[in-house]
Amino acid sequence: MSLVVVGSMAFDAIETPFGKSDKIIGGAGTYIAWCASNYAPVKQISVVGGDFPQAELDALTARNVNLEGVQIKKDEKTFFWSGRYHMDMNSRDTIETQLNVLGDFQPVVPESYQDCEFLMLGNLAPSVQLSVIEQLRNRPKLVVMDTMNFWMEIAMDDLKKTLAKVDVLMVNDSEARQLSGDYSLVRAAQTIMKMGPQFVIIKKGEHGALLFHEKKVFFAPALPLEEVFDPTGAGDTFAGGFIGHLAKTRDISFNNMKTAIIIGSAMASFCVEKFGTQRLREISKADVDERLSDFVQLVNFDIALG
Amino acid sequence: MSLVVVGSMAFDAIETPFGKSDKIIGGAGTYIAWCASNYAPVKQISVVGGDFPQAELDALTARNVNLEGVQIKKDEKTFFWSGRYHMDMNSRDTIETQLNVLGDFQPVVPESYQDCEFLMLGNLAPSVQLSVIEQLRNRPKLVVMDTMNFWMEIAMDDLKKTLAKVDVLMVNDSEARQLSGDYSLVRAAQTIMKMGPQFVIIKKGEHGALLFHEKKVFFAPALPLEEVFDPTGAGDTFAGGFIGHLAKTRDISFNNMKTAIIIGSAMASFCVEKFGTQRLREISKADVDERLSDFVQLVNFDIALG
Repeated sequence: MSLVVVGSMAFDAIETPFGKSDKIIGGAGTYIAWCASNYAPVKQISVVGGDFPQAELDALTARNVNLEGVQIKKDEKTFFWSGRYHMDMNSRDTIETQLNVLGDFQPVVPESYQDCEFLMLGNLAPSVQLSVIEQLRNRPKLVVMDTMNFWMEIAMDDLKKTLAKVDVLMVNDSEARQLSGDYSLVRAAQTIMKMGPQFVIIKKGEHGALLFHEKKVFFAPALPLEEVFDPTGAGDTFAGGFIGHLAKTRDISFNNMKTAIIIGSAMASFCVEKFGTQRLREISKADVDERLSDFVQLVNFDIALG
Repeated sequence: MSLVVVGSMAFDAIETPFGKSDKIIGGAGTYIAWCASNYAPVKQISVVGGDFPQAELDALTARNVNLEGVQIKKDEKTFFWSGRYHMDMNSRDTIETQLNVLGDFQPVVPESYQDCEFLMLGNLAPSVQLSVIEQLRNRPKLVVMDTMNFWMEIAMDDLKKTLAKVDVLMVNDSEARQLSGDYSLVRAAQTIMKMGPQFVIIKKGEHGALLFHEKKVFFAPALPLEEVFDPTGAGDTFAGGFIGHLAKTRDISFNNMKTAIIIGSAMASFCVEKFGTQRLREISKADVDERLSDFVQLVNFDIALG
């Protein structure tokens, strides 16, 4: 079995009401890899410039993240994003985006990745995501796709083509509404399921996440936190915990996806406690288990029916 | 044991993106009574004008709602509110408020209500809520208070005086932030608990509700619905299910409050399906039980720790 992760590896500069980061390591692929590698070895597909620190690559290798599929363009620069969060931490403005190496990224799937059973397509141009699917000779057991409103605005046709080939779509609530044209999230999920994926996960940030499949729905809360320090990467971290647990257990039932979502939520609750990937690097299995038991406490109740 | 409910009984006229009601029966006290009476007999305290339909009073009496504490002012008019909901159904504009009999409401607690063990203070002027507490010779086993931002703006001192005498406060998220001066709901709840109540319930509408007590927190989701037809009274219905279950079981532990919140959420999910109290009048115990099992399905997951 193998888990392949596709996603950006980047530099971020973040401002929040609580502080300002230097230029730090970010990118959807980075967050997913840090998180999923707690559960299963990762085969990474991405692209970085010559300015990306070797120590960062080594740290991922030490975590059992295979970087054979990560292109290093020595003479170019890594993707850079800077943004500023508003007081409510739910909305942000992009200050600057430098596509750099991501501008003409052509992913190449190494031969050693052809055993891919679980494919996590982090947020990237839908054509890049599709290219990876098409390079795999055998269809993976599960393909999970994350995307964002930006692609709905500039590449909806590509997005729909890719969507038709995936099993699970992850989007946030406003993206689900935009993609489906329906305000009701229940109906939005039904509409999206007709576009391809049998499972739809709608992320609602501090309000938790919903998993839809056929007529079933599962709700996972977000842990109520005293402080959200930096929300950057929370959605990618969620995706990493989700796919990591599924790849480890190799069980893609609705029931096991519920567990995977709780694990993703627990990981995301760590991610937001510090800038960037810092907190994800610090936590141990014991920390995660303790937080998982907080989730059990959070939603556990008894109802005597009849 | 007895459950006393204080709250307005009113006429409402409601506009939503889906339709427009006639002048229909509303008021926090009405919703609470319709809902709590599924679980326990209710002793109602309120005031109506001569224009309030006798058939409505008879319908409540038939539900085991004692109306001895409901003043009928023959020559005056019942409280009237009209409002219009926005497309997202989370915000609304008040079109008209006619206080009428509510303007100088002096509640009188009948002698037969002095056995009150559970007191539900529906949203009303805090001085009116306080007057009821002070008329009771024996302190009830549990006092639950609902309030709203309006009273924080015009009667904060009265509100704080009343708050010091209650066990459970119910507010929505923006009200919790306004009352505490803190954006974080976790810290807001801690601040409010220092003002008197040992339990704080923060209602987040479609995003569910949080129960705080000491360092503990419980989260109850709202059922994801295809359509919210009319949100009027959902919070009062929630309060009615909550206090009804507690009064029936006479157990005010944190654990039983969790169950009570799920029951309140289930009742609220019916309330929003039709205009006004209509849906609450139609549903049976079997309907409620079926919906409670939906809630169990919605949040039930397995985590193997260790």
